[in-house]
Amino acid sequence: MEQKLVIGIDIGGTKIDAGIIDSSGKILKKTRIYTKAHEGLDAVVQRIYDAIELVAADSKASIRGIGIGAPGQVDVKNGIVIFAPNMGWKDVELRRLIHERYKLPVEIENDANCGALAEAKFGAGSGANSLIWITVGTGIGGGIIISGKLMQGAGFAGGEIGHMTIKEKGPVCGCGNKGCLEALAAGPAIIHQIRDKIIAGTQTSILKIVDDDLNKITVEIAAKAADMGDNLSHKELNRAGKYLGIGVANLANILNPEVIILGGGVMEVAGHHLLKIIKNTVQNRALSQARANLRIELARLGNDAGLIGASLLI
Amino acid sequence: MEQKLVIGIDIGGTKIDAGIIDSSGKILKKTRIYTKAHEGLDAVVQRIYDAIELVAADSKASIRGIGIGAPGQVDVKNGIVIFAPNMGWKDVELRRLIHERYKLPVEIENDANCGALAEAKFGAGSGANSLIWITVGTGIGGGIIISGKLMQGAGFAGGEIGHMTIKEKGPVCGCGNKGCLEALAAGPAIIHQIRDKIIAGTQTSILKIVDDDLNKITVEIAAKAADMGDNLSHKELNRAGKYLGIGVANLANILNPEVIILGGGVMEVAGHHLLKIIKNTVQNRALSQARANLRIELARLGNDAGLIGASLLI
Repeated sequence: MEQKLVIGIDIGGTKIDAGIIDSSGKILKKTRIYTKAHEGLDAVVQRIYDAIELVAADSKASIRGIGIGAPGQVDVKNGIVIFAPNMGWKDVELRRLIHERYKLPVEIENDANCGALAEAKFGAGSGANSLIWITVGTGIGGGIIISGKLMQGAGFAGGEIGHMTIKEKGPVCGCGNKGCLEALAAGPAIIHQIRDKIIAGTQTSILKIVDDDLNKITVEIAAKAADMGDNLSHKELNRAGKYLGIGVANLANILNPEVIILGGGVMEVAGHHLLKIIKNTVQNRALSQARANLRIELARLGNDAGLIGASLLI
Repeated sequence: MEQKLVIGIDIGGTKIDAGIIDSSGKILKKTRIYTKAHEGLDAVVQRIYDAIELVAADSKASIRGIGIGAPGQVDVKNGIVIFAPNMGWKDVELRRLIHERYKLPVEIENDANCGALAEAKFGAGSGANSLIWITVGTGIGGGIIISGKLMQGAGFAGGEIGHMTIKEKGPVCGCGNKGCLEALAAGPAIIHQIRDKIIAGTQTSILKIVDDDLNKITVEIAAKAADMGDNLSHKELNRAGKYLGIGVANLANILNPEVIILGGGVMEVAGHHLLKIIKNTVQNRALSQARANLRIELARLGNDAGLIGASLLI
């Protein structure tokens, strides 16, 4: 029997992953290239072609289609990236471009939504009918599945969980608003907070790890320092975890999903610290009926969620 | 041709409305009784029977079914009111009780969800595929429609918009959490805030209207005082409107609906003050793509939304 294979592509501001994925969600072959978005649309699209041809070289005949996860606001119906600020893209007809070259079915979806699809099918949300996927990294994004279907939003702009105000007079966010979850709990917020405290004179073992170079501080280093008993790191991770917990509690109250899954770079390196604080905060802040059967889990598919989710579009 | 009529029932903590509704959403006959929930379940159910029999007296033959909106957490699938604190109800098999007596199709749904259904079909959300209904009164509740369907939540506990934290260290809410939208912007929050300011010495024309009796202050009186130029009332309504605007902006960012409709007692008497503040706040706080095509509207069906929505369950 012919195997049914799909090419999954996960386009990000820094790198593009492409892979061959089978119907069980297994990645048979994978490649990664740098996006170099500053070189312009044509150059990036050419690199996408290169990545596709590289991974598909040995299995061209069995490829059923190409699924693409792209950042930003994606018009799923018409296959257009409406707006992706970190790519410099506006109204890019990505589905048409890829389809015209390979004459295969092509589908395109927001990258966070692809992550949600993948975790729902093969990851921490397996079996769940309603699920929220939260990715915590440089920013905070999300994908929402209700009754087994992605909630895209009327203008394909839904799931912007990171821009929920949870602290009326909180810090200014990149989006212009104040007190967004992203401005309080994403990677840069944690790092800035630690840096500010060090500058203000707080003692911490982080300084030794980074050779007194504040620019070298990462969430991963903070998590390691916390593991070794560093007070400042512990406190600042708790702080971020508390804000993430407020965000999760709000989503539980509004949408009452079965599972809320947290992934992304920050959760990967600091999830063991953050998850228990998040759960405690939800316990204290969400309505009892909203948290009664709620599962709060770490993502299981890591960096491959986007790729695998993209393959599920076909 | 035989007319298709439905009995709609809207059960609340204070009163129960029952009516005969035709397929165009028109209420042909209506009655209202006091709930007197303290008299216990049997007494309340008897009063529901009385209300049904009163409105149905002249049109028994054309009644196709009975739709019921009930407060609290409603298991729509099994027709059970799981938990309704203001009724003192727990696991009440309301659908079975009503069905056994009248041998007609009976459906039951959360009251705020009924409001959402009614406004989506016959009110301010007519024609919209995705819609959020927010009711602002003694509490703040909501109903969410996505892709034309009510979002009930995995445990029938969704739509609890009023318990979204928007001010991390805000006032304590009835639910135990801090900084809930309900604790900041529902009727009692507005009234308490005005009272506290008066006690602290703020001058206001409200005192004349209530004959110096602070217990007589209502949101309606505050709205009238604001209309006549009262500074305190104006300021406190603006404050509530700003918080409601943060809640609306959060929902727009998370769910990107076509329409957000605000109704309930507070909006009915003070909507003309609150709506413009809400819209301004959303303009300042929501992502541009989430507010690009968003309509924010006052409810059109008033107190009848629950009744009409209940009839749509059949």
